[in-house]
Amino acid sequence: MSHSPRITPRTLKGFRDYPPEAMIPRERLIDTARRVYRSYGFSPIDTPALEYLDVLEGKGGEESDKQLYKFQDQGGRWVGMRFDLTVPLARFAAQHIAELGTPLKRYHIAAVWRGENTQRGRYREFMQCDFDTIGTRSAAADVETVLVIHDLMRAIGFEGFTIRINNRRLLAGLLETLDLADRAAPILRALDKLAKIGPYKVAEEMVAAAGTTHEQATRVLELAQTTGSNDEVLRRVEPLVAESETGAAGVARLRETLGGVTAAGVAEERIVLDVSIARGLDYYTGTVVETFLDALPGIGSVCSGGRYDNLAGLFTARELPGIGASLGLDRLLAAMEELGMIEKVATPAEVFIPFFDKTRLHAYLKLAARLRAAGIGVEVYPDPKKLGQQLKYADRRGFRVALIAGADEFDSGRVQVKDLEKAQQRDAPLEEDAASVIAAVQEILTKGE
Amino acid sequence: MSHSPRITPRTLKGFRDYPPEAMIPRERLIDTARRVYRSYGFSPIDTPALEYLDVLEGKGGEESDKQLYKFQDQGGRWVGMRFDLTVPLARFAAQHIAELGTPLKRYHIAAVWRGENTQRGRYREFMQCDFDTIGTRSAAADVETVLVIHDLMRAIGFEGFTIRINNRRLLAGLLETLDLADRAAPILRALDKLAKIGPYKVAEEMVAAAGTTHEQATRVLELAQTTGSNDEVLRRVEPLVAESETGAAGVARLRETLGGVTAAGVAEERIVLDVSIARGLDYYTGTVVETFLDALPGIGSVCSGGRYDNLAGLFTARELPGIGASLGLDRLLAAMEELGMIEKVATPAEVFIPFFDKTRLHAYLKLAARLRAAGIGVEVYPDPKKLGQQLKYADRRGFRVALIAGADEFDSGRVQVKDLEKAQQRDAPLEEDAASVIAAVQEILTKGE
Repeated sequence: MSHSPRITPRTLKGFRDYPPEAMIPRERLIDTARRVYRSYGFSPIDTPALEYLDVLEGKGGEESDKQLYKFQDQGGRWVGMRFDLTVPLARFAAQHIAELGTPLKRYHIAAVWRGENTQRGRYREFMQCDFDTIGTRSAAADVETVLVIHDLMRAIGFEGFTIRINNRRLLAGLLETLDLADRAAPILRALDKLAKIGPYKVAEEMVAAAGTTHEQATRVLELAQTTGSNDEVLRRVEPLVAESETGAAGVARLRETLGGVTAAGVAEERIVLDVSIARGLDYYTGTVVETFLDALPGIGSVCSGGRYDNLAGLFTARELPGIGASLGLDRLLAAMEELGMIEKVATPAEVFIPFFDKTRLHAYLKLAARLRAAGIGVEVYPDPKKLGQQLKYADRRGFRVALIAGADEFDSGRVQVKDLEKAQQRDAPLEEDAASVIAAVQEILTKGE
Repeated sequence: MSHSPRITPRTLKGFRDYPPEAMIPRERLIDTARRVYRSYGFSPIDTPALEYLDVLEGKGGEESDKQLYKFQDQGGRWVGMRFDLTVPLARFAAQHIAELGTPLKRYHIAAVWRGENTQRGRYREFMQCDFDTIGTRSAAADVETVLVIHDLMRAIGFEGFTIRINNRRLLAGLLETLDLADRAAPILRALDKLAKIGPYKVAEEMVAAAGTTHEQATRVLELAQTTGSNDEVLRRVEPLVAESETGAAGVARLRETLGGVTAAGVAEERIVLDVSIARGLDYYTGTVVETFLDALPGIGSVCSGGRYDNLAGLFTARELPGIGASLGLDRLLAAMEELGMIEKVATPAEVFIPFFDKTRLHAYLKLAARLRAAGIGVEVYPDPKKLGQQLKYADRRGFRVALIAGADEFDSGRVQVKDLEKAQQRDAPLEEDAASVIAAVQEILTKGE
């Protein structure tokens, strides 16, 4: 092997390595998401990274098709790498729902790939973290979607966040009344820019791109700009949309959803009825939600989703309504980094045992085994280097405690227990079962929490 | 969307969907591996699924190259999907080790892709589950590798398993003495078949393929066939190999490793010194380990690994010795299935609340929130269907407990707590904080463990 020309170690543009310091908080966040999803009965599924190209192509629009990683495999089949978890879910549901039954509540946390323009700071490989309830139109599922987001944000460690909720049927109802139902897509696109370009430009765009009259555009904006407390907004929008059955159903669903969320104990100020939320995606048909951090509203929604009438129409005649949302993992990690919520740690173990006295490896191994049996993670340094060098390593990795024992300590049957954060140390007797050492370590770890 | 021709939902040959029933035990096994790896201070890393083709090609031999999924991306770059986690680790270590420092203890649990011949029952996408310690030649790392495997097998739930250990230097030492050092590769390949084809055919192959004399082949087999207790084997092989420095070092390292493992409290019968283990891979240079289930020895090793002198020679001039092993996730799951160690469950939540009285959704949501706050997973059925239908759903999913409350129960302020496994039920008062219901549920869940 040493005779081959050396290859420059490098990653592809738009792809990243995750060293421990980046991967530890990432794994923690994923664990939290899984724990919360599971606590509501969502089950994990997984699907292949590669799919038949016809399963993926044409499902996410022109942009998605251009970004698709696709090729012919060894058997000459055209295949593609998944670009999201929704199309694979649609395929999965169409294929297995008869056997699995409904409601199907699944979460799926996995990498997806898009050949994005990296100049926009986008990555070509990233994780998605989705949960969906398929096979029910019930308001209970809408309530639960909001509750999951709420519990997830709190479990991650956020107190200041707002979940914004709307229902697409309000606008759909108004458009029916205005005889504009067939122009919903361009009107939604224009409304999506409301926060960015303001009502006048949005009105202009509606007239120009959707062919509405000025009066129609004004009526649409009147709905989208309704503000007030949740109850006030509901009261104000009801007369605007309730002429149509769709609009009335949207108002009723919002009322049920907000009521259910409150009944489950969510503080009212966390949930804001925001009729300006449209969410670009065409397939949402009912409830839509977005989640903003009070401290960093500018980064956009960190957890978004909505209700759809028919998930898998491209794959099956069976109608599959449902609702789901997706946690923006990378965006959230960046925000947590910015807010100082991420500890700089490069080890998942708390305790470090230097290999101090080179004749005592067995004693170190035994002590480590005792601590692990008590549920404490321990790393034993593998080489009997100078103690200072080993402690420098421990410091760089971010261990919380070091257990130091050299010839003197072994002779007197004691171990130094060093709190590396506070640079304090005490000693503890080293018994056969290491009970005193374990107690001393646990005391430091508990204090630190 | 409904006007497009319908696409048959299907997965590619050699690829699998994981529905909840398959994914729940899989996630549990991965969690266990992570927990054990972490308890020894191994940190998670991740690397991209796609690498520059020159990083992957020619690294795993001709067979790997043929199985490689490779293509040109949108930018015209030749890229490949990783076929293992070792080549990416070598690339990663070469790129980042100066900054990360040694020892680098990492675990990596991720999918890899190989265009295998599926007729051999192989899959084209599967998970690998590796841990490695890089940057040390210390015996402590060899000991630890065995300890991790031991703790992992027990944490998964196995009591009957055997870790077989050998050191490549024994054979290397003997071959030096016999002046056959340059023929190690074909001799190893022949020895790898010892269990399958027996000593006579192995000797024949050594003569034919490696050009040894019959006497040399006999000497090699004499080493490979040494049996007895670990101490006996060490005593018997020492004179065969100790003439060479390499052989003597191999014996010393085995002695140190076995001693350290015992010192850390591992039962002696679990560790078997087996000088016949060669492990095909050329890059192992010292300690090698394999792990067999006593109940299913025929499925082969479920966790294997070894020591290498130089991980990343293709990418860097820096010499990176290390040791690592890999858990055979799919093989182990198949074995656990066969041994009845896997519970058939399709929900990660324990408690089911039927949506029985359609006017009481808020009460169900509130009760569920109380249970979740106590750390209990709960699913509320989203639609007020017939109770029998809802309970059938709960049964199919494998919930442990159902909390049933209809109009009568609400009127009397009580809830039926039903143990779905034992088909027993009692009732509990429904207080504001649901304390009695929580206690009743916890009693059932604790009994079940």
